[in-house]
Amino acid sequence: MYKINDNYLKLPGSYLFSAIGRKVNEYAAAHPDKKVIRLGIGDVTQPLAPAIIEALHGAVEEMGHAETFRGYAPDLGYEFLRTAIADNDYKARGCEISADEIFISDGAKCDSGNIQEIFSVDNRIAVCDPVYPVYVDTNVMAGRTGTYDPVKETWSDVIYMPCTAENGFSPEFPDKTPDLIYLCFPNNPTGATITRDRLQEWVDYANRIGAVIIYDAAYEAYISEEDVPHSIYECEGARTCAIELRSFSKNAGFTGVRLGFTVIPKDLKCGEVSLHALWARRHGTKYNGAPYIVQRAGEAVYSPAGREQVKKQVAYYMNNARYILTGLKEAGYTVSGGVNAPYIWLKAPAGMTSWEFFDYLLEKANVVGTPGSGFGPSGETYFRLTAFGSYENTVEAVDRIKAL
Amino acid sequence: MYKINDNYLKLPGSYLFSAIGRKVNEYAAAHPDKKVIRLGIGDVTQPLAPAIIEALHGAVEEMGHAETFRGYAPDLGYEFLRTAIADNDYKARGCEISADEIFISDGAKCDSGNIQEIFSVDNRIAVCDPVYPVYVDTNVMAGRTGTYDPVKETWSDVIYMPCTAENGFSPEFPDKTPDLIYLCFPNNPTGATITRDRLQEWVDYANRIGAVIIYDAAYEAYISEEDVPHSIYECEGARTCAIELRSFSKNAGFTGVRLGFTVIPKDLKCGEVSLHALWARRHGTKYNGAPYIVQRAGEAVYSPAGREQVKKQVAYYMNNARYILTGLKEAGYTVSGGVNAPYIWLKAPAGMTSWEFFDYLLEKANVVGTPGSGFGPSGETYFRLTAFGSYENTVEAVDRIKAL
Repeated sequence: MYKINDNYLKLPGSYLFSAIGRKVNEYAAAHPDKKVIRLGIGDVTQPLAPAIIEALHGAVEEMGHAETFRGYAPDLGYEFLRTAIADNDYKARGCEISADEIFISDGAKCDSGNIQEIFSVDNRIAVCDPVYPVYVDTNVMAGRTGTYDPVKETWSDVIYMPCTAENGFSPEFPDKTPDLIYLCFPNNPTGATITRDRLQEWVDYANRIGAVIIYDAAYEAYISEEDVPHSIYECEGARTCAIELRSFSKNAGFTGVRLGFTVIPKDLKCGEVSLHALWARRHGTKYNGAPYIVQRAGEAVYSPAGREQVKKQVAYYMNNARYILTGLKEAGYTVSGGVNAPYIWLKAPAGMTSWEFFDYLLEKANVVGTPGSGFGPSGETYFRLTAFGSYENTVEAVDRIKAL
Repeated sequence: MYKINDNYLKLPGSYLFSAIGRKVNEYAAAHPDKKVIRLGIGDVTQPLAPAIIEALHGAVEEMGHAETFRGYAPDLGYEFLRTAIADNDYKARGCEISADEIFISDGAKCDSGNIQEIFSVDNRIAVCDPVYPVYVDTNVMAGRTGTYDPVKETWSDVIYMPCTAENGFSPEFPDKTPDLIYLCFPNNPTGATITRDRLQEWVDYANRIGAVIIYDAAYEAYISEEDVPHSIYECEGARTCAIELRSFSKNAGFTGVRLGFTVIPKDLKCGEVSLHALWARRHGTKYNGAPYIVQRAGEAVYSPAGREQVKKQVAYYMNNARYILTGLKEAGYTVSGGVNAPYIWLKAPAGMTSWEFFDYLLEKANVVGTPGSGFGPSGETYFRLTAFGSYENTVEAVDRIKAL
């Protein structure tokens, strides 16, 4: 008789955003007269930019003719896209990353979930607390996290690095020695950033202890301040200790288009074994590439017109972020984030838990946010709002919250 | 110091099709004057059908306007596509499969590689020999296959079910008891099929011993004979023992578009645990859905015009298959397959090994095929040709082989 992977049974509850989705759908069904504004899940609302639409139409047309039709993509992704990324995201910032160190994928969620596979099950992971749940959940599924404490809501074999108001939501080096360190800056969910100097200290630390940093830079397009690094490869020594994950979801509105990439420098080695080679083997064996038309859409993001247009889109969302930040401050909330990130992190008022505040906001203001506790124990009593709504909805949501 | 997943190091060589690709590219670079015809990798060459192109353009247009823009897709995939699949691929054939038992994905390669994750590492897998390498390779990566014997080219913990000329390339029940049974019909690489009665025996067997059949039906559109089942759910009892994988790659030319799906009936349970729930948890945690525009393209495959057009495309390829089959028979080759499948399976002549014949064909006829030994030990001395080329190239390739 076959058996299942019982690590799955250790997972408490369902995936955070699936759970929120169900709860909101139930509320909306029971109150069809209410206009629910969703600032919970980090999903964009602005349409794709004209340059991207044009590239998509063009690529669709190519697929309709035998001479220009494309079947299976190259294993790592099309060179036109990998070169555009290497030039614009790395070389232009002085980072020494070449096109053949870039693996195109269908998004950072898949990559951040799959990357743990190339590491030993014995490795100890360290995560920020609060944190994007995919990092921990996928390690639970792999059997890397020990046992769950339902009271503390923590795993015995995970090293948690609290990110709190006290440390400015920037983690300190942990007491125990980790093997894999997940860092995400600008941060989801807190919207906090890290300075280049501080990130350099993390790189030095990882090289010293022999750890790999999995650096999630999905929100780099939202950086507005000068001393905030866009890539971990701006730090010296990162090529021997860091993997970087990137996404087109938030800088170009690709949440429904699906495109991302992972950078693994060829200098990143465990003894003689190149992690680049391991990931290439996984990519070639378990994945068949992002659609050709989507890779052409990604290329358009780097065209002069595309760059201009997506920059405006980011500015649109950051204008929302400013409105939320200002409005909630005026209403007396303790808030952070929202300056280099599309996320605003606020403290639930009146001693409410995160889920109590979720229910309160949903019922009283018909506004959906994300309970901070869903991101880890240090997120309890906190709440995340996203700037990805339309301006009109954002204004209305903030005004409703202020009116409470 | 971190460690890697050393199961990866057990994998001999690189992924089969990556290895072939490199070898062919090297040859082409060294002989720029030669016209190499690729009948190796199972990649289609016909452009997307007009109904699909139209649906793609329409969906791209929707993505360009705020009112019709779509962000993250629902976890299981859009209902319009899941309903079209349930109605056309299942209900129309009398199979009791509902839309919420269908999980949309970006292709059968990913699904067939990922599905093993929800099972225990202790489970024993059984595979046909020869077999699509992804089944075995992904189980090697998971640590489920024991040690590799480089002489026999087999894994100690894998149950091989030889498919040979003697048994008509249809496997017998294995001596040892498997937990997971991978079956693919119409078969890749042999092009062989299974009768409905024989598949019913496999379903009965799996239910009796408590095994799960992972049924890869990626080539079902190529079935031309009456007693060959299109889905394992045509068999009684399959809902309690079978997972089915499907792809749009071969029936609608989506190798570069990327769309597939997995069916997990809600009756499929390990004790109290529903495999549907486990896969839903994986899908929700590690995956973010196929692109909206691609799901609309998938829907168009089921429209009246789409059905008509993709049927013609399949007929085009099957005409190629007939040409290869007839031509090679005339040239004195021992051949099979090609009647209900786009693959022709032939015996290398004059005692050559599979790779010797690969090199021979590449050098003497500039034709690329796939060495049978790449699919498993029983594939040695065999060779796979695909019918996915253009008609002109197929004719030229066969004529070149005949002239040798």
